[in-house]
Amino acid sequence: MTSTEHTADLSIYTRRESEARSYCRSFPTSFVSARNARMTDADGREYIDFLAGCSSLNYGHNDPDMKQAVIEHLAADGIGHALDFHTGPKQAFLETFERLILEPRGMDHKVMMVGPTGTNAVEAAMKLARKTTGRENIVAFTNGFHGMTLGALAATGNAGKRNGAGMALSGVTRLPYEGAFGEGVDTLAQIEAMLENPSSGLDHPAAFLLEPVQGEGGLNAVSAEWLRGLDRIAKKHGILLILDDIQAGCGRTGTFFSFEEMGVEPDMIPLAKSLSGMGLPFACLLLKPELDVWKPAEHNGTFRGNTHAFITARVALEKFWADDAFSKEIKEKAEILNHRLSAIAGMIPEARVKGRGMMQGVDVGSGELAEAICADCFKAGLIIETSGAHDEVVKVLCPLTIERETLTQGLDILEAAVAARVAGQAPKMAAE
Amino acid sequence: MTSTEHTADLSIYTRRESEARSYCRSFPTSFVSARNARMTDADGREYIDFLAGCSSLNYGHNDPDMKQAVIEHLAADGIGHALDFHTGPKQAFLETFERLILEPRGMDHKVMMVGPTGTNAVEAAMKLARKTTGRENIVAFTNGFHGMTLGALAATGNAGKRNGAGMALSGVTRLPYEGAFGEGVDTLAQIEAMLENPSSGLDHPAAFLLEPVQGEGGLNAVSAEWLRGLDRIAKKHGILLILDDIQAGCGRTGTFFSFEEMGVEPDMIPLAKSLSGMGLPFACLLLKPELDVWKPAEHNGTFRGNTHAFITARVALEKFWADDAFSKEIKEKAEILNHRLSAIAGMIPEARVKGRGMMQGVDVGSGELAEAICADCFKAGLIIETSGAHDEVVKVLCPLTIERETLTQGLDILEAAVAARVAGQAPKMAAE
Amino acid sequence: MTSTEHTADLSIYTRRESEARSYCRSFPTSFVSARNARMTDADGREYIDFLAGCSSLNYGHNDPDMKQAVIEHLAADGIGHALDFHTGPKQAFLETFERLILEPRGMDHKVMMVGPTGTNAVEAAMKLARKTTGRENIVAFTNGFHGMTLGALAATGNAGKRNGAGMALSGVTRLPYEGAFGEGVDTLAQIEAMLENPSSGLDHPAAFLLEPVQGEGGLNAVSAEWLRGLDRIAKKHGILLILDDIQAGCGRTGTFFSFEEMGVEPDMIPLAKSLSGMGLPFACLLLKPELDVWKPAEHNGTFRGNTHAFITARVALEKFWADDAFSKEIKEKAEILNHRLSAIAGMIPEARVKGRGMMQGVDVGSGELAEAICADCFKAGLIIETSGAHDEVVKVLCPLTIERETLTQGLDILEAAVAARVAGQAPKMAAE
Amino acid sequence: MTSTEHTADLSIYTRRESEARSYCRSFPTSFVSARNARMTDADGREYIDFLAGCSSLNYGHNDPDMKQAVIEHLAADGIGHALDFHTGPKQAFLETFERLILEPRGMDHKVMMVGPTGTNAVEAAMKLARKTTGRENIVAFTNGFHGMTLGALAATGNAGKRNGAGMALSGVTRLPYEGAFGEGVDTLAQIEAMLENPSSGLDHPAAFLLEPVQGEGGLNAVSAEWLRGLDRIAKKHGILLILDDIQAGCGRTGTFFSFEEMGVEPDMIPLAKSLSGMGLPFACLLLKPELDVWKPAEHNGTFRGNTHAFITARVALEKFWADDAFSKEIKEKAEILNHRLSAIAGMIPEARVKGRGMMQGVDVGSGELAEAICADCFKAGLIIETSGAHDEVVKVLCPLTIERETLTQGLDILEAAVAARVAGQAPKMAAE
Repeated sequence: MTSTEHTADLSIYTRRESEARSYCRSFPTSFVSARNARMTDADGREYIDFLAGCSSLNYGHNDPDMKQAVIEHLAADGIGHALDFHTGPKQAFLETFERLILEPRGMDHKVMMVGPTGTNAVEAAMKLARKTTGRENIVAFTNGFHGMTLGALAATGNAGKRNGAGMALSGVTRLPYEGAFGEGVDTLAQIEAMLENPSSGLDHPAAFLLEPVQGEGGLNAVSAEWLRGLDRIAKKHGILLILDDIQAGCGRTGTFFSFEEMGVEPDMIPLAKSLSGMGLPFACLLLKPELDVWKPAEHNGTFRGNTHAFITARVALEKFWADDAFSKEIKEKAEILNHRLSAIAGMIPEARVKGRGMMQGVDVGSGELAEAICADCFKAGLIIETSGAHDEVVKVLCPLTIERETLTQGLDILEAAVAARVAGQAPKMAAE
Repeated sequence: MTSTEHTADLSIYTRRESEARSYCRSFPTSFVSARNARMTDADGREYIDFLAGCSSLNYGHNDPDMKQAVIEHLAADGIGHALDFHTGPKQAFLETFERLILEPRGMDHKVMMVGPTGTNAVEAAMKLARKTTGRENIVAFTNGFHGMTLGALAATGNAGKRNGAGMALSGVTRLPYEGAFGEGVDTLAQIEAMLENPSSGLDHPAAFLLEPVQGEGGLNAVSAEWLRGLDRIAKKHGILLILDDIQAGCGRTGTFFSFEEMGVEPDMIPLAKSLSGMGLPFACLLLKPELDVWKPAEHNGTFRGNTHAFITARVALEKFWADDAFSKEIKEKAEILNHRLSAIAGMIPEARVKGRGMMQGVDVGSGELAEAICADCFKAGLIIETSGAHDEVVKVLCPLTIERETLTQGLDILEAAVAARVAGQAPKMAAE
Repeated sequence: MTSTEHTADLSIYTRRESEARSYCRSFPTSFVSARNARMTDADGREYIDFLAGCSSLNYGHNDPDMKQAVIEHLAADGIGHALDFHTGPKQAFLETFERLILEPRGMDHKVMMVGPTGTNAVEAAMKLARKTTGRENIVAFTNGFHGMTLGALAATGNAGKRNGAGMALSGVTRLPYEGAFGEGVDTLAQIEAMLENPSSGLDHPAAFLLEPVQGEGGLNAVSAEWLRGLDRIAKKHGILLILDDIQAGCGRTGTFFSFEEMGVEPDMIPLAKSLSGMGLPFACLLLKPELDVWKPAEHNGTFRGNTHAFITARVALEKFWADDAFSKEIKEKAEILNHRLSAIAGMIPEARVKGRGMMQGVDVGSGELAEAICADCFKAGLIIETSGAHDEVVKVLCPLTIERETLTQGLDILEAAVAARVAGQAPKMAAE
Repeated sequence: MTSTEHTADLSIYTRRESEARSYCRSFPTSFVSARNARMTDADGREYIDFLAGCSSLNYGHNDPDMKQAVIEHLAADGIGHALDFHTGPKQAFLETFERLILEPRGMDHKVMMVGPTGTNAVEAAMKLARKTTGRENIVAFTNGFHGMTLGALAATGNAGKRNGAGMALSGVTRLPYEGAFGEGVDTLAQIEAMLENPSSGLDHPAAFLLEPVQGEGGLNAVSAEWLRGLDRIAKKHGILLILDDIQAGCGRTGTFFSFEEMGVEPDMIPLAKSLSGMGLPFACLLLKPELDVWKPAEHNGTFRGNTHAFITARVALEKFWADDAFSKEIKEKAEILNHRLSAIAGMIPEARVKGRGMMQGVDVGSGELAEAICADCFKAGLIIETSGAHDEVVKVLCPLTIERETLTQGLDILEAAVAARVAGQAPKMAAE
C-alpha cells in the first residue's frame, strides 16, 4: 500500500495525538492527494481548498514543475539535509532571489536562513532589533500574530495563545493598529503622542513589528498612508521597522511583498509559509545589511536551510516572478473575489468585506455564524476557515493559482452556505 | 542544469547571506550530492561525513527506501503540506511510532506535532510544564543546549547564544549537571539541598530540563545512577522531568531513546533532528497523557506535521526499529569508535574520550587544537566538528549506518590529523 | 551650637553627597528652621513655602500640637522604634483613624503598616493585587508616578526615572489617563476596547493603579465621571482599583481622600507623605478586608510603624478632621488659588490652570519658562517647583494651613515673576 | 492621657490592622516606654530587649543625648521634613560621618540619601550596579535577605517572602554562600567555575550582593578568607561588590562596618537600621565616587533625608565612634555572649553557636524548639526572636550598650528556658 492509498482510521489521533491538534477537528476526514486547489480524501471525495495551508500554498498543491525538480534531485542523490553548508540548490535559490526579487525592487537586504518556521524568523528579527539598538522594548500591535515561541508569542495578541505560555510575556508593548479603536480615532497620532511624552511610560522601542495585513487577526489591512506615517515616525525616532510578511507575502496581496507599493522600505522582513513554493518548511529573514551584526552561529538551528525547499522555492520564483504576469493574474482574481464577497456580505446585516488582494473575507458579525458557515461549506466540499479575534471573519485564502472556474465554484458553495444560514437552514451537502 | 550539476560560485553568500551562517565557513566548498556517509562537492571531491547534520542524518544521506517512498508520494500527487489535517502519511507514522517505539517500551506518551524545529518542541514542553504546574521556574543545567527561540534559549547555557537575545532571559534557573564541578562534587546533593532549603532562593521549579548526553555542551553524559537520582528528586518534589533527546535520541546512543536503559520515565521528551529519518524538518514532543491539557491550537504552527517527513520517518522506523538488529549494530560500532578514540586520546597529553554510543569524541584540551584538527581533517576529506564550552571536543557524529570500512577510513584521517598536529605539522591533503 | 544655629558650608555636599541629590540644586541655601508656611535659612532669610515637602507638610512645618506631643513622648522615654509591636501610640492612631476617617466614610478597609515610604505602600498593593487575582499584569497610566523601587517604578511613567533601573521593567501595561490624547479622545472607550478584544494583547490585569490627581505628572486630574467609568469597567472585568493617594490625599484636594466625593470605593489606597502630619516618614496601605490574605510578615520591614509618626498622625486627625471646618477652609483657599492662578495664566499665551483643590498650578507651555519662573521666585523668597512630563507646570503645593495673607504674598511673588518673564526680564530680588 | 499612659485594648489590631503584622503576635502585650535595653508594657511589666528592633537599636532605646538633641531641635522649630534640601542637621551629619567613619577608614565613598528603608538602599545599589555595568544579572546568595520591594526581594532567598510578590522575580542569580553545602564543599570554587565556563548559563553579573553576616538567614558569617576570595573573583571579572551591612553594620559585630577587618573594600554599602542611632527611619547607600553617575533625582523619594534622624545619627557617631572605646566594649560583651551561648548550646544535642560579635545565637536544630524557647523567654521577661531558614536559630540581638548585668540577666532567662525545654517542661513565668 502506498502512502496515497489508505484506509482512514482516525482512532490513532484520539489515542496518541495531543489535544493541541486543531484544523483536523474542523475537517474530520483523512486526505490523500491534492493538486493545485483541489484535495481528495480517503473516500475519494474532492474538496476545493480555500485555506491553502494558511497561505503556505500560494502556488497550489503539488505544482508539477516544483515537484519534478525535487523528484529529480532525490533520484540523483542530490544533497539533502545540509545544515548551512554551501550547496548547489542554496546558491541557486539565493542567486534567483537576488535577481528576481531583491534587485528589481532596489532592495539591498541580506537573507538570513533561520529555522524553518515563521516564528523563528520573527524571533531572529526581534533579537537583532534588540541587539543593534540596545533597547529591549518592541512595539507590536493589537490583533497581531507572530508565532508561538516565547519571544514571538510576546508579540502575538491572541489571549488563548498567550495563555499557553504559562508565564508572563515580557519585552513587548502593544499599540493600536490602524482602525483598532474605530474609524474616527487616529491611532498614528496616539503612537506619536506616546513616543513624544517622556512620562508616557512607553520605553523607547527597538522596533515596530507588524503585519501589513493581519491574517489571523481578522484581515485588517493598513493603508499605505498609515504605514508611511508609521515609517516616518520610526525614522524620526530611530526605531526599526519590521514587516512580518509571513502570511501576506509571496504574492498573496498581488505583489511579491504585501507592502511593496506603499512607499516604505522595512529594515527587516520575516518570510515563511509560501516561500518554498510547495509548502515545504522554509523561513528566512530579510535584513538591511547594516543590521547584519550577527556573529557566526549566534542564532543557529539544525534545519535552517532546507535543501529541497531551496529547489522548489527557486522554481517558484522562476515560474511566477520572472515577469508581472502572475501579479496581474492575482489582481484580476482579487477583483472577482471582492465582487463576489461584497455580494455575500450584502446578504448579512452589518457584514462587511475585509482584507486586500487574495486575502479577503467577510466579517459576518459573530464567530458562531462564521463557524457554522465554514462547517456547512465543508459538507459541501469546500475547505474554508475563520479568522479574527472572535473568529468572526470567513477568510478566503485559496491558492493564487486557482483556476477561475474553481474559484467560482468555491464561491458558489460559500454563497449558498451563507444564503442557507441567513434563511435559517443548513445547505444541502454536495454529496447528497 | 539540474540541481546536482552546478558550478560553485560562493560570492552570493558573502553578498547576500547573513553573517549568521556558520558551518559553511569551516567547510568552504559547495556540496552537490550525498549517500549514506559520503558527500560529494561541486568539484567531484568526496568527503566522509562525521557530522551527519549534527545527528540529523543518523540513517545516512538519501536512504534509498525513504527516498523512494517520497518520490512515489510526490509522483502520485500525494498530499503535501497539510497543516495538522488527518492524512494517510500522518496516520501511518503515528500507528508505526506507537507500534514500534511506544508500545514495546511501555510508554503511554502522546505525540504533539510542533513546528519542525527542536527549539519548538522544547518551547512546547516548557510551556506545558509551566501551565500544568502553575510555576514559572524551570531548572536547566550547565552546558545544556536547547534552542535559539527565546524560551528555549533561556535554558541554553552558551553565553554567545544567550547574548544573541539582546535582552535578559528569564524563567530558568541553572543547576550543575553531573560532574560540572569535577569528580569529587556530588551535584545531586547540591540540587537537593537547594530544593530543601526554603531560603535558598530557588523558586520551586516546574520541571528539570536536560539532555541525557549533552551534544553541544561537550559530550557530557549523565550516569544512570545520577539520572535516577534526579528522577527521584523530581518525583519527591512534584517536579516534571523533561529529557531533551533531540540530538542523543533516534538511536544515536544505541537505543531509540538515549535514556531507555536507565530506569527513568520522563514526563516529556522533545524529539527532532533524525526523527524524519532523512533529514527533513520534523519535530515532536512526547508527553504523558495526564499532561495533555492543551486546548486545540493553543500551541500551533503552520509547518507542524510535515507530510513528507511522516513518510520517511515511518520508513525509518520500519527499516531500523522493527527488531533489535540495528541497536546491536550501533553498539558494535560504538565499541570500535571508543577503541579508536581512546588510542587517539592517548596521543595527546591529558586528552580524554567523552560521550556514549555513537556520540563520542575526544577532549583535546583546547578549542584551538580541536579546530585545527578538524580543519586538517577537512583538507583530508573528512567532515568533522568540535563541541564543548571552549570547542575543545572533537566530536564524531557519523551516520549510524556508516559502513565499517568508511568508519575506519574516517578514523584513520582523524588519527593522522591528530598525529600530525601532535608532531607539530599539518597532515598532507588527500587531494595532493 | 545647636542644630538650628549653624554656618552653612555647602562643600560637604559636592564632596560627599551623591549626584542624585536634586531639590537642593534648585534652592541653593541651607535651611535651619520653619513654622507653618515659612522657612528660614542660615542667613536668617525667610521663604514662603509653596512646595511643602511635595505635599508632605499639608499641616505646615512644626505644628505646635504635634511637636508638643512628640516632645512629651520623648521626654517620658516613651517607646520609640518598636518594629510592629503593639504600642500605645499605635493603638491610639488606629482607633482615631477608624473613628475619624474610616467609619464616617463607611469604609471597612484595614490598615497595613508598610515601610515608611510611599513606594513601599505601592509595592505592597501591587503584590497583593497579583497574589489575590493570580494575574501579573497591572495597568498603570500615562504620566503616573508611583515610586522608585523596582515594582513601583514599573508603574511610573517618567523615562528618566525608568532609565535609572538599568534593566527592563515588567509586569505593567500602560493605558491612557483621561485626556492623554487630547480633549476629543475618549480614553475610557479605548481601555474598554482593549479589555474586550481577546486579541488586543492586553493580558487581563490584576488591577488599575492610578492617582486621582497626578502630582508629578503635571497636575492632571480625572473627572468624577471618568473615574466612575473606570470603576465600572474594573467591577465588570474583576479588576481591582488601586487609588494612589500619596500626594493628593490627606486633605490636599479639600477632602481627606482625593476621590471621596466621586462615587467610587477603591480596593486599595496607598497613603504616605502628609499622613504623619508633621513630615515624619510614615506610609500605610488601606485595603479591603477580603483582600487581606497576607501571612504574618509576608511583606515586612524594620521601620513599618514609626511610633513618633503615630503620635503626630493622631494629633493631626484630631485637630483637623474631627469636623468639616478644615475641609471648608481648604476649599475656600482653593478658590482663591484658582482665581489668582487663572489671572496669572491669562498673562501667558496658551497657558492654563491645571489641578484641583490646593493642588493647582499653571501650565506655562515649556519647562524652560517654568523653571525660570521658579528660579526667579526663589530669589524673591518663594519656594516653588515645577511638575509635568516636560516640567512645564508651575505647581502650588503650599501647606493647607497657610495663612491667607501668606498665600497672597506668595502668589504676589509668583505673579510678579511671571509678569517680569513675560515682559522679558527677571524680577528684582526681594533682598535688593 | 499622654501617649505613655494608656490602657491596652488589642481589639483594634484584629479589627483594623492587616494580617501582615507579625512580631506583635509573638509578644502579645502593648509597650509604652523603654530605655536602653529595657522595655515596659501597659501593665508596668518590664522586659529585657534581646531583639533591639532587629538591630535598629544598637545604642539602646531613647539614648538621652540623642533624645535631648531632637527635643531641642523640635522646641526651636528646627527644620523638620526637608526633602533633600541642604539643612544644618544634614550638613553636620555628613561632616561627622566623613570625619569619624569614612576618613579614618580611608574610604572615599559618597553618601546617597535614599528612602528611609533598607530595601530602598539595596534597590539603589542594584540599579546603579546595572546602570554602570550595562548588565542585568546580579548574584545574590543562598539565605540572603535584602528587602521586600520587588528589586530587593528578587535578591532575598526566603520562599515565603518571595511568594508574596505574586509574580516571578527576575534579574538575580543565586549562588551558594560560604558553607551552604556543608563544610567540605568549596563554594568559592564553584562560583569561579560558573563564571569561567562560558556555557554555564550564568550571565556575567553586574555585582555580587551579600551580607557579611546573614541576620535573617540564620547568623551565617563569611570568613575573611572567603570574602577576600570573592572580592578577588569580583575584581578579576569586573564585578561590583555590594556588602549589605544593614543589619550587621553600625557596630553590631564590633567594628562600625562588619567587614572592616577583612581586607576588602566594597563598591557599595547599603546602611539602615541603627544608622540613625535611635531607631528613626533612615537609610543611605555608600558608593565609590566613580560609580556616582546618578542624574539629579534619578532615584528620588520624599523622605530621603530624615532631618531628625540626621541629628540623632550625628550624636551617635560623636558619642560612640570618636574613639575605639565602644568597639572594645562590644568585643568584650561579645566574648561574654559567646561563652554563655556555648554553654547553652552544650545543653542541646547537636546545637551550635553561630554568628559573630553581638550577632550570635544558637542553632537549636528545629524551628519548633527555637520558637518554644523564645515564647518561654517572653513569659519570663525577655524579648528574643528566631532566625534561619527554618527559624531554627535563637538569635541574640541586644543593644550593644546593654549593661553587663542586664545582659547576664537576659542570658540567665534564656538558659533557664532552654534548660526547662530540654528537661521537658516550660519555665516558670517571671511574674509568678
